[in-house]
Amino acid sequence: MANITKKVSWSGRGEERTPLLNGSEEVRYSRQSSGGSVFHIGRLSTVDLDEDITPEEDPVRSKPKEIPHNEKLLSLKYESLDYDNSENQLFLEEERRMSHMSFRCLEISRWVICGLIGFLTGLIACFIDIAVEYLAGVKYDLVKENIEKFTEVGGLSISLILWAVLNSAFVMVGALAVAFFEPVAAGSGIPQIKCYLNGVKVPRVVRLKTLLVKVFGVICSVAGGLAVGKEGPMIHSGAVVAAGVSQGRSTSLKRDFKIFEYFRRDTEKRDFVSAGAAAGVSAAFGAPVGGVLFSLEEGASFWNQMLTWRIFFASMVSTFTLNFFLSIYHKKPGELSSPGLINFGRFDMDNVEYSLYEIPLFIIMGAIGGVLGALFNVLNYWLTIFRIRYVHRPCLQVMEAMLVAAVTATVSFAMIYFSNDCQPLETVTSEDYPLQVGFGLCTYNPLTLGLFTLTYFFLACWTYGLTVSAGVFIPSLLIGAAWGRLFGLLLSLMTTGKLVWADPGKYALMGAAAQLGGIVRMTLSLTVILVEATGNVTYGLPIMLVLLTAKIVGDYFIEGLYDVHIKLQSVPFLHWEAPATSHWLTAREVMSSPVTCFNRVEKVGTIVDVLSNTSTNHNGFPVIIQAAASEEPGKLCGLILRSQLIVLLKHKVFVERARSRLSQRKLQLKDFRDAYPRFPPIQSIHVSQDERECMMDLTEFMNPTPYTVPQETSLPRVFKLFRPLGLRHLVVVDDENRVVGLVTRKDLARYHLGKHGLEELHLAHT
Amino acid sequence: MANITKKVSWSGRGEERTPLLNGSEEVRYSRQSSGGSVFHIGRLSTVDLDEDITPEEDPVRSKPKEIPHNEKLLSLKYESLDYDNSENQLFLEEERRMSHMSFRCLEISRWVICGLIGFLTGLIACFIDIAVEYLAGVKYDLVKENIEKFTEVGGLSISLILWAVLNSAFVMVGALAVAFFEPVAAGSGIPQIKCYLNGVKVPRVVRLKTLLVKVFGVICSVAGGLAVGKEGPMIHSGAVVAAGVSQGRSTSLKRDFKIFEYFRRDTEKRDFVSAGAAAGVSAAFGAPVGGVLFSLEEGASFWNQMLTWRIFFASMVSTFTLNFFLSIYHKKPGELSSPGLINFGRFDMDNVEYSLYEIPLFIIMGAIGGVLGALFNVLNYWLTIFRIRYVHRPCLQVMEAMLVAAVTATVSFAMIYFSNDCQPLETVTSEDYPLQVGFGLCTYNPLTLGLFTLTYFFLACWTYGLTVSAGVFIPSLLIGAAWGRLFGLLLSLMTTGKLVWADPGKYALMGAAAQLGGIVRMTLSLTVILVEATGNVTYGLPIMLVLLTAKIVGDYFIEGLYDVHIKLQSVPFLHWEAPATSHWLTAREVMSSPVTCFNRVEKVGTIVDVLSNTSTNHNGFPVIIQAAASEEPGKLCGLILRSQLIVLLKHKVFVERARSRLSQRKLQLKDFRDAYPRFPPIQSIHVSQDERECMMDLTEFMNPTPYTVPQETSLPRVFKLFRPLGLRHLVVVDDENRVVGLVTRKDLARYHLGKHGLEELHLAHT
Repeated sequence: MANITKKVSWSGRGEERTPLLNGSEEVRYSRQSSGGSVFHIGRLSTVDLDEDITPEEDPVRSKPKEIPHNEKLLSLKYESLDYDNSENQLFLEEERRMSHMSFRCLEISRWVICGLIGFLTGLIACFIDIAVEYLAGVKYDLVKENIEKFTEVGGLSISLILWAVLNSAFVMVGALAVAFFEPVAAGSGIPQIKCYLNGVKVPRVVRLKTLLVKVFGVICSVAGGLAVGKEGPMIHSGAVVAAGVSQGRSTSLKRDFKIFEYFRRDTEKRDFVSAGAAAGVSAAFGAPVGGVLFSLEEGASFWNQMLTWRIFFASMVSTFTLNFFLSIYHKKPGELSSPGLINFGRFDMDNVEYSLYEIPLFIIMGAIGGVLGALFNVLNYWLTIFRIRYVHRPCLQVMEAMLVAAVTATVSFAMIYFSNDCQPLETVTSEDYPLQVGFGLCTYNPLTLGLFTLTYFFLACWTYGLTVSAGVFIPSLLIGAAWGRLFGLLLSLMTTGKLVWADPGKYALMGAAAQLGGIVRMTLSLTVILVEATGNVTYGLPIMLVLLTAKIVGDYFIEGLYDVHIKLQSVPFLHWEAPATSHWLTAREVMSSPVTCFNRVEKVGTIVDVLSNTSTNHNGFPVIIQAAASEEPGKLCGLILRSQLIVLLKHKVFVERARSRLSQRKLQLKDFRDAYPRFPPIQSIHVSQDERECMMDLTEFMNPTPYTVPQETSLPRVFKLFRPLGLRHLVVVDDENRVVGLVTRKDLARYHLGKHGLEELHLAHT
Repeated sequence: MANITKKVSWSGRGEERTPLLNGSEEVRYSRQSSGGSVFHIGRLSTVDLDEDITPEEDPVRSKPKEIPHNEKLLSLKYESLDYDNSENQLFLEEERRMSHMSFRCLEISRWVICGLIGFLTGLIACFIDIAVEYLAGVKYDLVKENIEKFTEVGGLSISLILWAVLNSAFVMVGALAVAFFEPVAAGSGIPQIKCYLNGVKVPRVVRLKTLLVKVFGVICSVAGGLAVGKEGPMIHSGAVVAAGVSQGRSTSLKRDFKIFEYFRRDTEKRDFVSAGAAAGVSAAFGAPVGGVLFSLEEGASFWNQMLTWRIFFASMVSTFTLNFFLSIYHKKPGELSSPGLINFGRFDMDNVEYSLYEIPLFIIMGAIGGVLGALFNVLNYWLTIFRIRYVHRPCLQVMEAMLVAAVTATVSFAMIYFSNDCQPLETVTSEDYPLQVGFGLCTYNPLTLGLFTLTYFFLACWTYGLTVSAGVFIPSLLIGAAWGRLFGLLLSLMTTGKLVWADPGKYALMGAAAQLGGIVRMTLSLTVILVEATGNVTYGLPIMLVLLTAKIVGDYFIEGLYDVHIKLQSVPFLHWEAPATSHWLTAREVMSSPVTCFNRVEKVGTIVDVLSNTSTNHNGFPVIIQAAASEEPGKLCGLILRSQLIVLLKHKVFVERARSRLSQRKLQLKDFRDAYPRFPPIQSIHVSQDERECMMDLTEFMNPTPYTVPQETSLPRVFKLFRPLGLRHLVVVDDENRVVGLVTRKDLARYHLGKHGLEELHLAHT
């Protein structure tokens, strides 16, 4: 079991597995002897997963009986993003050169970019919608023709096979693209974007290739009739668009438009990515406000009024673009009142009322949704564990996807065959308006609804996590709508129709909200999304109630689906606040130490050696002034990043060369921006033996004012500084301003609140 | 002109005028010689308003020609709130004693409090609504009876006088209460709550007395027929309720319920106040999501997922309570589908469409709204300046309010007399559903609408800023609805009815949005509020467009109304980001220095003397370890607050007493909480001559890990630390960790972006 986690990850590739955080085994174990930490929980335990350590070897760990489990690990594989500007001299010089006017221009270009993001995201949504409609239409025509031809000769099984084969073929193409070209494009992409916005670098998540595979994949899987939706992937697509547009170039296509160069850093990119995610939601559900709230609730940790307005603008443009082009496509140009990709159908407007007596019913529904959602998540959790263990080869993954497609086709065929009410064929095959199943006005018989709920529940659960691009929103809504409608029907049956207010359509909506809320555990944004998507405000209050109940009940059992998947990937995800009971811990216990530091003027050889050391692979290095001939740690005077050092080495910015006027020009911020975000690895930079003896002056390039904390700072206080400021490295200093340690993301993410209080995750090179 | 600012302020009382921020004139001027700052803009210039300094006296200031103007000043009168926990030993001990379970209980009590806040806010809204309805009804009956009696005998002027007198009487009562009992209850209270959430302590803003006066005042002014709404004050009321409920006691009533003691500090209180403000919006407009967004957009600087959910819960409960009780009052118990206090009327549901061709029209309307809003703000700005100068006595203020009431009554009477369409009498007198004027289905003639817009615009502008409790939301909506409807009518007249889509009701809505957006400059929250209040999602997109345009156009001329009033009060308000062009400045230029520090073990006499020094009145003191017999500044080892020192002095926590076992017990966190938030002034604490020779050990009580920055940190970087963490004091240290300065709120708020780049405000003891 111990080597499970080595097999599958979001990126699914082996080459990017080197841990690039500051902190390594040698460091860890040397700490134990030197640190003398008081609290056992503060002790760091790095588990090397290749050896099965026995409890006896590690007696200090709090729960020695436990086998190191996937979930209790924190991967060292993930790098962090630099959400804190490195305000070095170059940066400050540039900022100071800029006039009031240029800042205003920057602000305007931010708005322009957001507009572009919205426009392109809307276009993509439009493209996906039309492509799916077209493909589903072709498929439907084919099958219908076939049924008409063969039904009289008893050849319904042939139709079934044709249908299953067609669906599997679609899904196969999509799964092939995902599995072999870009594994990170699998799923809805929401967990990945959540991680990105949290500050975790998920490899290749915002690349152009990912976008292409994602769009292609989602068209295939929706057209292939899987129990999936095309809404979730829109969020990922929007984020990729944002990351691309805002940089004014494409590294993949090797085109640089020489615009928006100012935005080539993680801080700015992040802001645009949150706008992109919001634009995606906005296009998917026709919910611009919901999009902004989604971005805030699920992603953005960094709230800012101006940013929010820009995000809002991007969302607005996105819905608008989608509606505009869809209205042209549907030959009603200029009619902009249609919603996003999904359509809940219209409510009978005279009927949108609810009364006090229904509130307890809604709360019960919320609780049911919470329980069912938790069940969904638990099943999916075990399924994912199974997949990580046994289904990690791309071809196996494609085969599983095809199998699911075939089974889905068979099941829906059977459903259609055995129940004849309300054109279920159209409902299940044509993916145009799948939600009509729940909110439409035709009455279903309870048996069909129950059966539908049951089968669709398991199908959707099986489908999520497949190697296809697809979202879980629509299936969840469908399941919920089905059992919600069933609930409403049973209610009116039980009371023999006396309850005039028991409109099944209303209960279908509540059920849909409850189920989706139970699975993804969003409340605020989901309320707004549902209100905006249904175009009806009256049910806002009960929807909120239902979602809150579903969340509270669901959280009792297991986390939300996205968090489950983030945890399964052992991502060092920082939650909103430090665990409540972590006041015991101080920076001294949490930090990694000793820290690899550089002198202000450092020998090139030393730098190259440190950077090349694959066993440590540090990313941030405090720059110190060493007191002459003393053994004690030097005084902090700055912080420099691996990426900056690499650019310096690449341009051979050595003191000797500067003196001998060998270097033509002073290094500028532009050189760093050009290298961003794919800085070359140290191995690709050739440094000759002579050059190794040169010196490098880091003064100009280091961040001279890194944020610091004293050693006695409590963990919650460190967290309060680290999280909202989006730091990557936080230097711990003693009362003489000497470097004693470094706190990074994984040092904080290690501590989390389990069932029995504070738990510490193990670090692993998975 | 220079002493204008001394006269009127929100709190309107003289006794709380002592500046309590760290930084004083002596300090300032000593800096000039020692600091040797490079940038002139970094120089501090404290203007003492009692002497009219001439430009020659202060030659270094960038614009010496300018007379020190109200707007260019920053008041030293306002204290800050401590949004950063002082994590001293007592606090850490308490936190460490608490189990996982107790944290969970705390979390539950937070939810309970939020529920209570929502419930009580809803009740208050309900009470205001019913009281206004009742009073307006009584008044209406009286006048109607009178009209019926006297019309035939030509005594319409008697009716007019009766009406005017009645209205003036109502307004007088309200204005008296506000002017003499609680001046801070004047206006909508939104600027005050905005400041509170920003971290500025506005005296008495969240007290019980303020709430009572506010509620009473708003009932009087609305019943008095002023051009005001009862919605704005709900936000303030919600905030007061929150601040009261969350503390589990009332200092005014001297009742302590011994509950929620953990929440007795600024950090926790602030969170609840944002929930209260949201609940207020929610009750006022029936817009729970809008409430949350309002709280986020206008107030909260401190975003946190859990907090947002709680805020959401409070909003939900508030709307729910209001609807529930109103449904009982209206004898339709259980019908919860009604909106908040305002009612926009229902839209004809078949008609809610718009087409692409209308988008430019909406944008034009947005621009008109922006211009009109800016005009409103400019007029109100000059009016407020006038009031500050000449109308600062309470009795004058009451008389002005009565005058406005009489004029309003006369004007509306005249309007009714000269125009007879669509029951305008009812529209203007009965305050039930005033918005029917804009959205109702009866057609007005353009002349009436134009006249209404004009008169109501100036009346509303005159009214805002009067010494009555009242909001500006409804008048803005009414003005906008009137000219919007006029716009729609003219449109269909011009095109001679060819434009079938030119529904005046739609344009009334857009006009209302444009006008309100132009005045208050909210976008995201206002969109949601309007969507929720109208109960219609379709117009969401055009409303957003209109609001964004109104904001952009309006911002070109002048800030939003609330910001104008905040600026007029010279409040040290921190915006979201540091001015873009402030990278020139570093902590060295910004900070106040030298800093008054204490030793870890300090003589009581020294402490008392420093605290009693009214010319400085510092609030935070770095605690240092002085190197023996050296002149240079000591090393930082902590930070202690004035309030903490006062509690220590009050309990006589002296080293000598502890040794001689005179003090019965160890001081606990509870002692600090009991004194919060009204810490006694130093003058009330008697320290004998013997005690002055005692020593005080601050180790246990100081915050041992204050956040620090090096001197070279740029202003934006300092801001980025200060603002999101809600700091009050930020210690500036040199590279040996020695204290060299202290950055407080006013040091950062001083720099703002003017028309010509970075400007520096002057500090004044107003």
